[in-house]
Amino acid sequence: MAITGAHVARAPRIRLGMVGGGRDAFIGAVHRIAARLDDQYELVAGCFSSNAEKSMASGADLGVDPKRTYADFSEMAAREARRKDGIEAVAIVTPNHMHAPVALQFLKRGIHVICDKPLTATLPEAKKLAKAAEASGVVFALTHNYTGYPMIRQAAAMVKAGELGDIRLVQVEYAQDWLAEPIEQTGQKQADWRTDPARSGAGGATGDIGTHAFNLAGFVTGLEVETLAADLQSFVPGRRVDDNGHILMRYKGGARGMLWCSQVATGLENNLRLRVYGTKSSIEWSQEDPNYLWVGPLGQPRYRLTRGGASTGAEAGRLTRIPPGHPEGYLEGFANIYAEAARAILARRDGTALDAAVTFPGLKEGVAGVAFVDACVRSSGRNGAWVSLNV
Amino acid sequence: MAITGAHVARAPRIRLGMVGGGRDAFIGAVHRIAARLDDQYELVAGCFSSNAEKSMASGADLGVDPKRTYADFSEMAAREARRKDGIEAVAIVTPNHMHAPVALQFLKRGIHVICDKPLTATLPEAKKLAKAAEASGVVFALTHNYTGYPMIRQAAAMVKAGELGDIRLVQVEYAQDWLAEPIEQTGQKQADWRTDPARSGAGGATGDIGTHAFNLAGFVTGLEVETLAADLQSFVPGRRVDDNGHILMRYKGGARGMLWCSQVATGLENNLRLRVYGTKSSIEWSQEDPNYLWVGPLGQPRYRLTRGGASTGAEAGRLTRIPPGHPEGYLEGFANIYAEAARAILARRDGTALDAAVTFPGLKEGVAGVAFVDACVRSSGRNGAWVSLNV
Amino acid sequence: MAITGAHVARAPRIRLGMVGGGRDAFIGAVHRIAARLDDQYELVAGCFSSNAEKSMASGADLGVDPKRTYADFSEMAAREARRKDGIEAVAIVTPNHMHAPVALQFLKRGIHVICDKPLTATLPEAKKLAKAAEASGVVFALTHNYTGYPMIRQAAAMVKAGELGDIRLVQVEYAQDWLAEPIEQTGQKQADWRTDPARSGAGGATGDIGTHAFNLAGFVTGLEVETLAADLQSFVPGRRVDDNGHILMRYKGGARGMLWCSQVATGLENNLRLRVYGTKSSIEWSQEDPNYLWVGPLGQPRYRLTRGGASTGAEAGRLTRIPPGHPEGYLEGFANIYAEAARAILARRDGTALDAAVTFPGLKEGVAGVAFVDACVRSSGRNGAWVSLNV
Amino acid sequence: MAITGAHVARAPRIRLGMVGGGRDAFIGAVHRIAARLDDQYELVAGCFSSNAEKSMASGADLGVDPKRTYADFSEMAAREARRKDGIEAVAIVTPNHMHAPVALQFLKRGIHVICDKPLTATLPEAKKLAKAAEASGVVFALTHNYTGYPMIRQAAAMVKAGELGDIRLVQVEYAQDWLAEPIEQTGQKQADWRTDPARSGAGGATGDIGTHAFNLAGFVTGLEVETLAADLQSFVPGRRVDDNGHILMRYKGGARGMLWCSQVATGLENNLRLRVYGTKSSIEWSQEDPNYLWVGPLGQPRYRLTRGGASTGAEAGRLTRIPPGHPEGYLEGFANIYAEAARAILARRDGTALDAAVTFPGLKEGVAGVAFVDACVRSSGRNGAWVSLNV
Repeated sequence: MAITGAHVARAPRIRLGMVGGGRDAFIGAVHRIAARLDDQYELVAGCFSSNAEKSMASGADLGVDPKRTYADFSEMAAREARRKDGIEAVAIVTPNHMHAPVALQFLKRGIHVICDKPLTATLPEAKKLAKAAEASGVVFALTHNYTGYPMIRQAAAMVKAGELGDIRLVQVEYAQDWLAEPIEQTGQKQADWRTDPARSGAGGATGDIGTHAFNLAGFVTGLEVETLAADLQSFVPGRRVDDNGHILMRYKGGARGMLWCSQVATGLENNLRLRVYGTKSSIEWSQEDPNYLWVGPLGQPRYRLTRGGASTGAEAGRLTRIPPGHPEGYLEGFANIYAEAARAILARRDGTALDAAVTFPGLKEGVAGVAFVDACVRSSGRNGAWVSLNV
Repeated sequence: MAITGAHVARAPRIRLGMVGGGRDAFIGAVHRIAARLDDQYELVAGCFSSNAEKSMASGADLGVDPKRTYADFSEMAAREARRKDGIEAVAIVTPNHMHAPVALQFLKRGIHVICDKPLTATLPEAKKLAKAAEASGVVFALTHNYTGYPMIRQAAAMVKAGELGDIRLVQVEYAQDWLAEPIEQTGQKQADWRTDPARSGAGGATGDIGTHAFNLAGFVTGLEVETLAADLQSFVPGRRVDDNGHILMRYKGGARGMLWCSQVATGLENNLRLRVYGTKSSIEWSQEDPNYLWVGPLGQPRYRLTRGGASTGAEAGRLTRIPPGHPEGYLEGFANIYAEAARAILARRDGTALDAAVTFPGLKEGVAGVAFVDACVRSSGRNGAWVSLNV
Repeated sequence: MAITGAHVARAPRIRLGMVGGGRDAFIGAVHRIAARLDDQYELVAGCFSSNAEKSMASGADLGVDPKRTYADFSEMAAREARRKDGIEAVAIVTPNHMHAPVALQFLKRGIHVICDKPLTATLPEAKKLAKAAEASGVVFALTHNYTGYPMIRQAAAMVKAGELGDIRLVQVEYAQDWLAEPIEQTGQKQADWRTDPARSGAGGATGDIGTHAFNLAGFVTGLEVETLAADLQSFVPGRRVDDNGHILMRYKGGARGMLWCSQVATGLENNLRLRVYGTKSSIEWSQEDPNYLWVGPLGQPRYRLTRGGASTGAEAGRLTRIPPGHPEGYLEGFANIYAEAARAILARRDGTALDAAVTFPGLKEGVAGVAFVDACVRSSGRNGAWVSLNV
Repeated sequence: MAITGAHVARAPRIRLGMVGGGRDAFIGAVHRIAARLDDQYELVAGCFSSNAEKSMASGADLGVDPKRTYADFSEMAAREARRKDGIEAVAIVTPNHMHAPVALQFLKRGIHVICDKPLTATLPEAKKLAKAAEASGVVFALTHNYTGYPMIRQAAAMVKAGELGDIRLVQVEYAQDWLAEPIEQTGQKQADWRTDPARSGAGGATGDIGTHAFNLAGFVTGLEVETLAADLQSFVPGRRVDDNGHILMRYKGGARGMLWCSQVATGLENNLRLRVYGTKSSIEWSQEDPNYLWVGPLGQPRYRLTRGGASTGAEAGRLTRIPPGHPEGYLEGFANIYAEAARAILARRDGTALDAAVTFPGLKEGVAGVAFVDACVRSSGRNGAWVSLNV
């Protein structure tokens, strides 16, 4: 297969701003590395905190011009839109409830948006944002970063090519243990907002990682969930959102699925794992060992595809930087979302056609994710009754 | 730890008969190896088929005296009971619907029973058999053989000792692919009766392997399922029983579980896997790699216990024949059920007290397994409503 | 593929005697299970110890007739040879230095021999025994038991069929840690004789497990070592034999190999692992996970063959009892050597032709193994000079 | 443990130049990503090829000022040294024989050097370069990138802390298959120069990857090889350098080692694997699964440390960007070498003391690596005699 490889001929870098991601944040720094990895973006402005001092300090850490370091995201949007060398795109890495208000400020000024997931904290808000963003015409990328792993692209390509036959079963799980104890009560910042329904949304584990699992299954199979039945729990005393979800899914067309998301699965780190079974073959992939895809054709030996290796196709190869056996990881997969978004942004800038192979999660996936959380909460509230997704 | 080891000082062998298990059967031969492995049984009589010729041919293969080779199990029970050297125990390895009628003939004559699972094809029958067997006072072992694996004993001991803390989650699955296509229509004998509700019972995958998964989770955790919600499917056109089951479980005391059983999971062989998560630690075990138990204590590195190895306890050691690193497998685990039953039978024979460490699945587990299938079918018939187990 | 399966139509059992294997022995019990597993042998006599009391007690444990329980192996050979129902075969499970004297007593009386490895403690003795055994015409099986694993049979068949192309490299290792400390000084019985050159032979790790690794590589590749260079160590203070060996090998025809054997490899149990690389493909197998064989064809994805599974051939299938996904282990592999030997013994008894597929290690492999140890010791004594194998 | 994390407060970026790494090169692009990942370097000049047109085109791809894109590395060194904003460091990513001439031009002008491995193509050249570089006082980093993996840092820290006890055994291997066929005869650029002794040096696999294995073992154990015995092969017809090496090593202090390097190991990608056995414990690490370190303490269960996870120490944490369970890979490890070198360069720039924890391979390791190849070739030429390393 052809590996595109690490050598990238780059256009003048996309001028990028960031909202959120100050000194004590986690995901902001990941976005910055992802933006930097393939040299397609340059971070030139930011509102890293609503606290002015903190925002300035964070900007200084990152080498951002103090004049373009803001404490108010609306002001940032307004000012940057006025500059000749203003930002072309903004990365939104705030808690969930701020995604929509921030995004609206930028997209209405024609600034492209790269937004962390889930899209918003509530479903009505998600739908409203999607409508506005579509109307604006900007590029809108949602960082369901696991879809950036090359072997996930390979899996999706195999499903699309019919190599699995008709899909019968989807078994997907994302289990962690970092919320096995009530650490939100100790002031741990990540736990604090993620377990606060006002900032995170009605879902806890379902929103934070269940949406990733749901999105990944949809990305690979191309199937849509019609109804689901959910049994959500809050195992940790005092917790205000779910920390575990057991979910059954019925897909359009007859496939069935099981989704498990948990933040109390003692001993697990980031166990995101997808298995898909069709009439002819199956695939299995684990995020903690992401350079491999296991294939199980009926009546033949199981085999292992490797990123960049023999029999792995162009869809994986175009997002692969280095030869097989030298692992790429989480940051590279995340960077692939940025790279795909860059291709879309540059096509707009240059007025050229976008390569048909480019794909990244966006508004549709964002609404679906929030609808997934909404449905889980509704179903669980009705003792696990089957409910439709209001997408 | 102390390994009991392969050297066994044996009593005069238990005289064993068998019903079922003729030439073209599968599980009968497994039972015979299991009985033989530790040299505690001697096969001396059998009704290997209801077809006289076939029974005689099978008996001849196995070196059984033609005079003690029968075509009618009632006659066998009657005659053997009359002999001075008659069988002390009978292994029942017929299709499910025959377990009860056969067992009743033997146990009413005081002959101990080692019966393949599930206990019976229907729940009323299971309860009736259990009552009769209890009344008779015979030893009754049900070959939920996976509970014979030493590392499963280790896991159960760890749970009992509180090493996992309070159990929150049980994730168990048993998935195969041998029924991914309608092979019952080609006359494959195993598929034929296992997909026939009249012989197998109302459950397909749920009865054949779901019961194993259900039993294993109960054995290790010591928890009882209070209610379950099931979504059963028959993916293969024309199939008369379920070939896939997605099941949510609520345990007494608050733990929750997910159980997946499938016979259409393309590419899988005998993927029985159990994961249990408690407040303090977790365990993970896979039947296809049974000599290891993974332990995941909260906030500490994950570690691997090996059968017979460092830090593995007496409960595993007493069922271990050879040192760690030399794998024992399915037959050894199966033989452990026979060995445990032998200890019970010999205690009866000798009028001695039974070692408190001896344990094996029996009537209670048998009724629970059939109740599990019954509940799955009822729940699925009511679109996945939560139903109680009628145990 | 066709699995022979667990159902075995058996001939009247082979009457088996045993020398060694009393109460505190290890390998004797393994031999007995191996003999019993497929129901082809019946243990009817034994000299379980040269201590009469101990031999009688051990015989009683095993249900052996006290009249056929001996304290002197020569007497046993003489008496059993005179009985009409005397033993047809003897299993020799003593320390190494006794293999030859015991074997000679039985084979000269036409009694078949199943002997533990290595063949003898010294090379001259090995050659003398081989000559005598060949002259006697008895069946002589040497329990290099790892060659009984089905996936090793599969590997050998693939090499023979040319699937690997020309073999270039053999990487084989057998590493344990049970002698990482001087436990022979604490009276541990297994350590005691295995580190005593008078009973074990000049090699320690080389003789005890290096011979297994050497034999396995030869069995799978069909290649013969022409010269080797060895760097042997005795890491544990006071140890009288090597406890680690680093060995380079040059095979006839140009292939090269590396062999590592160790009994001081902290943290390892029975890490016997073979990798063979040819011009077209490679195979990899690990004894601790023996039901799988990994195949790595050049320029194609790596795949996994399973015992009894898709694309696994007849050579593995004929030694397979149960379907794939239900693991067989060490005892089953050991039993396969007994089963193969039984086929040879029964062919002699019945005067029938032996199935061409039957194969088991014997005198040639035994002499080669002792020659391997001899060469290692010679080379190491000459600072790792390349030396020839005196086979 | 404390993860330093992805948020980096950066100083003004180090101005970096590059020699080599044009359009059709491989490792140059890897170096550029490594330099970029933590935002500590800015590529501002380059001599990407000795062909002026190719160098200009490559520079344009990378956004380098055409005025600072050169076709002659001496000219580049001279001009950049004269600029006020001239480069502070140069990355050398040419074939091996050019490392020394290029490095000498830059270091004599006080420009820091980050050089790909091996240090040079010949041992005299390596020693000469080392002397000159030491005299110049520049920072000299050699990209033995595998020492940048956090779990390798963890392993080294454990050895240093005595957790393994006294080291007895080092088993290290680096095996690939990309040269299993004579692809250098088809014009494949990477194969072309790497199999040409004039450009690569006397070693083939030994120089290209054997040096990595050798360096890694030394980095983790802190031990020095005193003598080695090598059996090198050129399996592929017409190949001018070794493509496989079997090497025995004796370390100062008594430890022994085995090193296998191969480029004809069919089916392997970048199988670099290190195992170290001490009197108290052992470690095992595989480059293809680099986020884990297996620890095997004597008489205790084997456990798994994860990058960023429980019980993993500060030495790994300071080179870790993201939480455990989200894999980092080859590029991140490579970037860690750049990050360590940046710390040294910035300390020079700022006149501050260097954090004692900073470590990266440099001249000493470079000379040792070339001495390793030299010794292998000498030993193999003398039929595997033990030879000393001329360091």
